[in-house]
Amino acid sequence: MLNKGYCTIPGEAGYEELTLKLAEKWGADVVRDSDGTTLSDKILSSGLNVYSTLCLIRSDNAWAKQNTDKLQQNFLMSDPVIAQSNTVTIDLLKGYFREQFRINTNDDSKIWWQVFDRTSAKEIPAYDWEFNDTDGTVTVYNTVKNHFYTVNFLAYRIWEAISMYNHITNNWGDREHLMPVDPIYPEAQERILSNLEKWLENHPKTDVVRFTSMFYNFCWLWGDDQNLRYRYSDWGSYDFSVSPYALTLFEKQKGYRLTSEDFINAGFYNNTHNVPTRKYLDWIDFINDFVISFGKKCVDLAHHYGKKAYVFYDDHWIGIEPYGHRFAQFGFDGIIKCVFNAFEARKCAGVSGIKTHELRLHPYLFPTGLKGEPTFKEGGNPTRDAKNFWVNIRRALLRSPVQRIGLGGYLHLVEGFEDFQDYISELAQEFRLIKSLHESGKPYTVPCKTAVLHSWGKLRSWICSGHMHEHPELDLNHVNEALAGLPVDVVFISFDDILKHGIPDDVKVIINCGRLDSAWSGGDHWKNPEVVARITEWVSSGGGFIGINEPSAAKFSSRYFQLSHILGVEREIGLTLSKGKYNYTMTDNDHFILKDSGPVINLGIEAGDIYAVNANATVLADRNRQVRIAVNSFGSGRGVYFSGYRANPQNIRMLFRAILWAANKEDAIDLWISENINTECAYFPSSKKLVVINNRGEIETTSIKDETGNIIKVTLDEYGIKVIETT
Amino acid sequence: MLNKGYCTIPGEAGYEELTLKLAEKWGADVVRDSDGTTLSDKILSSGLNVYSTLCLIRSDNAWAKQNTDKLQQNFLMSDPVIAQSNTVTIDLLKGYFREQFRINTNDDSKIWWQVFDRTSAKEIPAYDWEFNDTDGTVTVYNTVKNHFYTVNFLAYRIWEAISMYNHITNNWGDREHLMPVDPIYPEAQERILSNLEKWLENHPKTDVVRFTSMFYNFCWLWGDDQNLRYRYSDWGSYDFSVSPYALTLFEKQKGYRLTSEDFINAGFYNNTHNVPTRKYLDWIDFINDFVISFGKKCVDLAHHYGKKAYVFYDDHWIGIEPYGHRFAQFGFDGIIKCVFNAFEARKCAGVSGIKTHELRLHPYLFPTGLKGEPTFKEGGNPTRDAKNFWVNIRRALLRSPVQRIGLGGYLHLVEGFEDFQDYISELAQEFRLIKSLHESGKPYTVPCKTAVLHSWGKLRSWICSGHMHEHPELDLNHVNEALAGLPVDVVFISFDDILKHGIPDDVKVIINCGRLDSAWSGGDHWKNPEVVARITEWVSSGGGFIGINEPSAAKFSSRYFQLSHILGVEREIGLTLSKGKYNYTMTDNDHFILKDSGPVINLGIEAGDIYAVNANATVLADRNRQVRIAVNSFGSGRGVYFSGYRANPQNIRMLFRAILWAANKEDAIDLWISENINTECAYFPSSKKLVVINNRGEIETTSIKDETGNIIKVTLDEYGIKVIETT
Repeated sequence: MLNKGYCTIPGEAGYEELTLKLAEKWGADVVRDSDGTTLSDKILSSGLNVYSTLCLIRSDNAWAKQNTDKLQQNFLMSDPVIAQSNTVTIDLLKGYFREQFRINTNDDSKIWWQVFDRTSAKEIPAYDWEFNDTDGTVTVYNTVKNHFYTVNFLAYRIWEAISMYNHITNNWGDREHLMPVDPIYPEAQERILSNLEKWLENHPKTDVVRFTSMFYNFCWLWGDDQNLRYRYSDWGSYDFSVSPYALTLFEKQKGYRLTSEDFINAGFYNNTHNVPTRKYLDWIDFINDFVISFGKKCVDLAHHYGKKAYVFYDDHWIGIEPYGHRFAQFGFDGIIKCVFNAFEARKCAGVSGIKTHELRLHPYLFPTGLKGEPTFKEGGNPTRDAKNFWVNIRRALLRSPVQRIGLGGYLHLVEGFEDFQDYISELAQEFRLIKSLHESGKPYTVPCKTAVLHSWGKLRSWICSGHMHEHPELDLNHVNEALAGLPVDVVFISFDDILKHGIPDDVKVIINCGRLDSAWSGGDHWKNPEVVARITEWVSSGGGFIGINEPSAAKFSSRYFQLSHILGVEREIGLTLSKGKYNYTMTDNDHFILKDSGPVINLGIEAGDIYAVNANATVLADRNRQVRIAVNSFGSGRGVYFSGYRANPQNIRMLFRAILWAANKEDAIDLWISENINTECAYFPSSKKLVVINNRGEIETTSIKDETGNIIKVTLDEYGIKVIETT
Repeated sequence: MLNKGYCTIPGEAGYEELTLKLAEKWGADVVRDSDGTTLSDKILSSGLNVYSTLCLIRSDNAWAKQNTDKLQQNFLMSDPVIAQSNTVTIDLLKGYFREQFRINTNDDSKIWWQVFDRTSAKEIPAYDWEFNDTDGTVTVYNTVKNHFYTVNFLAYRIWEAISMYNHITNNWGDREHLMPVDPIYPEAQERILSNLEKWLENHPKTDVVRFTSMFYNFCWLWGDDQNLRYRYSDWGSYDFSVSPYALTLFEKQKGYRLTSEDFINAGFYNNTHNVPTRKYLDWIDFINDFVISFGKKCVDLAHHYGKKAYVFYDDHWIGIEPYGHRFAQFGFDGIIKCVFNAFEARKCAGVSGIKTHELRLHPYLFPTGLKGEPTFKEGGNPTRDAKNFWVNIRRALLRSPVQRIGLGGYLHLVEGFEDFQDYISELAQEFRLIKSLHESGKPYTVPCKTAVLHSWGKLRSWICSGHMHEHPELDLNHVNEALAGLPVDVVFISFDDILKHGIPDDVKVIINCGRLDSAWSGGDHWKNPEVVARITEWVSSGGGFIGINEPSAAKFSSRYFQLSHILGVEREIGLTLSKGKYNYTMTDNDHFILKDSGPVINLGIEAGDIYAVNANATVLADRNRQVRIAVNSFGSGRGVYFSGYRANPQNIRMLFRAILWAANKEDAIDLWISENINTECAYFPSSKKLVVINNRGEIETTSIKDETGNIIKVTLDEYGIKVIETT
């Protein structure tokens, strides 16, 4: 049973033998194609189930070329230009990659565009500027000398972002540039559905349509300068879903109109790291509504042809919102997510309303990785990479199962990497073992349900925006990573949730982690006295609050940390330099929270100048008399502060202990917790099975206490795993 | 001539012999008393001139005790108290030092006080709170549970702050607590003038009345908790000049009324490090006006009695404003400033409209220093301290002369510190030597007049607030310290100056240095497009702009550094994480600015996450791909950015080079500049004398080029000084 199934292999025409050999070796029951590969008849007839990738919006380039007014669009802000006199002319696309964008000259610029003096932050009246559609410039009149001007304009995307990336990364030369069609137009919908129908008819051997994904990609603006190739990149942004037609529909549905500036936002765009505006949330809702309603038609069609429909939870995932309350309405049979680490695995596993969750593991079978580093080529070490990713992912799978794993890319690249071929075989077995443990019931968790509080709440469960390696500086990425493998039930809640429904009854600990004005800390939500009062009440009645970096931060009223009374600390940001700071003494050198941490704690880029507000706070760690870690009691509840956070074995244990301490459940450290911090375990009460994993490349020994106080001793190989039957 | 004069010694009754011996040894021509000492007849008749200290507002404690409604007052904010139900009672003085404050129960609290819900930032209507004058509490009704409440209330000061400090520091036991009288009341003025007249009559041997100082001390709020003794301390704050009577006069004069909250400011008070409001500037102006008008009567009286009037530029200096345009109206004959370092010496030397500038050197003859460290007692090393202070002060005196030096405190403490006695003798000789050099004319400066731009402008020339050791974290303190000894003409200008008068024609370089929203960076002034446009125009026409830490920072419009186009860099504060950053290459490893800096540059607590905005910026130093130093050309002008600043020999030279580079005057490095950065020189063109100093405790050799290209070689003893006659 552990040798076979639940595994997807990428096939490749021309490499039929390799495909079938590795399918056998890895126990794959499914073969798939990838962007740039096809499956031959021999593969299709091999007895493996077949996934076929389909990207609906870039699959009919001929139609796209004939209907360039139906291409997808977005707002762009031109680079600022300084006025040298009383007029200034702005080359709109200057600095942008002209192979990606073409200015929209179809819609009336005076209706949809806006021009701003960004020095004074004032809009220029429409009669004071003029668009020249022959050279793609805007001339602004009556300018103020030495002020900067920018234009918010609409551009069509003439090269679909993901295929552009694949094309350039793999040197596809003069292969045709695929263009993204916008399904918002009824004509485009008709065409997509009829294409899909034809496609379904022409793919009789396909078992699963793997939609990649629905319609709109996350926002990815490219530049022409090689030193600023990615001008803007946000995995969660809806900026690529805009068009005058959609804006018109939005106005009808929501009763008000959005402007270009609602998207451009002075050049900040609506990036996921910032607190979303009510308008932007409305736009997300509007697009989500459309994607579901039209997406469901596509899914229904696949079902009609007897095929299953899986969706890829990356790339064109915008508008799908697997954590939205309407996701089940699509009727998808499966969801596939590319994963590098634990929180991404939990993000996939946690999607409800769907039967099959599949992880697309890394490395992708490409010559280079996402950061341009070598993988399947000279200098690469794909086995090491795969192992590093897997060790992190495995932690998460102990807590929450998925049903399948798979790979993607060009299979022929693994030739010559025999150790990789062997390792994937091992990995697949481990996966099947862990999957089997969940079948009899859920693993044990400590009685300290934890809510991560940020502006997005459930909608951005387990993720900030993009992969960990894209934003290693974000403390919340590290907190998500730590939580993803801990025996703790985790939910994600928003400030709106608290205002509407209060703090859920079963939540014992709240974590708030981020910098001032970020979506993660909460920004202006902390200026709402209702939020502060509700959390104050909750902690004083026994709740636990863990704040990291700039929790509850807002420049508002008399404080910076609006919950400094709970945290016991405040931050000096230079506005209270004349204020004396409490001269704390460090007395607690052996606090419960730090028991396994060792002397040096790496908290990353810490918030500096943290000080204790009074004698009640207990400082556990400091540097140059600046607080790094503090604990505080408030009423019947407890507060914990960390000046930053990085996921590593010491800190993962420290956060776990902080959760127990904040919840007033220190005892829980003595039940079903692996004593050695390089190892972790999960206990499955219904089967009485205990699984222990070694996260480190050395032999490790550990011990685990059961309910009776018995100590179970385990020794594990490098990165090893063991299942122990307890009774 | 170098052995005698221009030096003040503190005398002490009971130590007449010591006084006269050291007066002889140090070449002192003046003897003074100090707080806690008296001069005996023998000293008064010794032939030395006599300074007598006089603090007008604490000199008649009997009258003060009879007129407690005429004591000085200030607004205090009570510590926040959380409401547990729909009423909350606040003990107003809780946490404050009750020996310093007494609640004002004379004036109607409903008129002058305010109560706030600081959680919602809303004022509580007067009918919803009640002051209980028997127990000093305020009860607030109709409170919201879990919100915090504070009271802005008036308190009399019942122990004058400086004598309180001296009393407690020197363990004066049950000596009477002196109380500060407020001269704003006509009765108090009458009493002060009649006391002064009596005093003048009773001090026939006094040559100089040393006012300590005028009337209002800087704000210094003490706490009852020894771990929070100094709750608030701001050398520049006017918070101690408030009373209902003064507020009433203000309203008459300025035409509008100030509230308690204009002073309390949500607990931030009007601290000097923050951008002053227009209202606060009006209050400063009002108090300055009063202090001059009544202060002049006191000065005139001293003159009437044939005595000179000197003012101490510390302690009760509030309202004097030596850098205000009306200062000369006092008619003072001299100004005395206590100094630890170079910028304080320049601050004293730079006061115009006065004949004699005198430095009160450190260490003060007290057992302990300002930070409680031992000086004239076991464990102290006053000679080392004096030398360290002097080496820094000396740099400043090369650029701008003062007329006198002196000491203060208890002379008997120097007994047993023979080396200190010897060193002061040497130091006094050096002082007289440097003073003599200035007599024939000014020293040479490079043609790069530099303006330090901040919110206070000239009013806070050469100082932020308080001593360097109180705020070593402030970059501007270090910049002031560096500039104080450089051969550069320096002015201090405000944003209002630029708006009213433009950038002065002779200024070649502007420095802006500070953190977001501080008075030093400029805060909301950077949201004024007129400020940005004027500086942009000026730099594009050839000006140089040096920005340090968060120059031109404001959360406004499309940027954070509003002058990022001039600086070539921007700061990522977490709101543009999705934006790509320009991938700069470091090419210039031998830039003019860094030529003498060596490999490791300590810039203190740096602004992190600085990035280059485009290819035009040249990055000179970085760390983990975060820019530390960059240069940028803009039009005909130049911009320089430093992520922080600390004054040390390397960095002082680096700032000097940055000024030359920004001004496009790199050649100036080759004329009258000492090549060895541990040494500095000043050239006096009219006398053709060159003075060279060694700032280091090792023998140093250096060379200096004159106008003809001749190289003058000099070798100097440890901390040595040499005067060379050129020709």
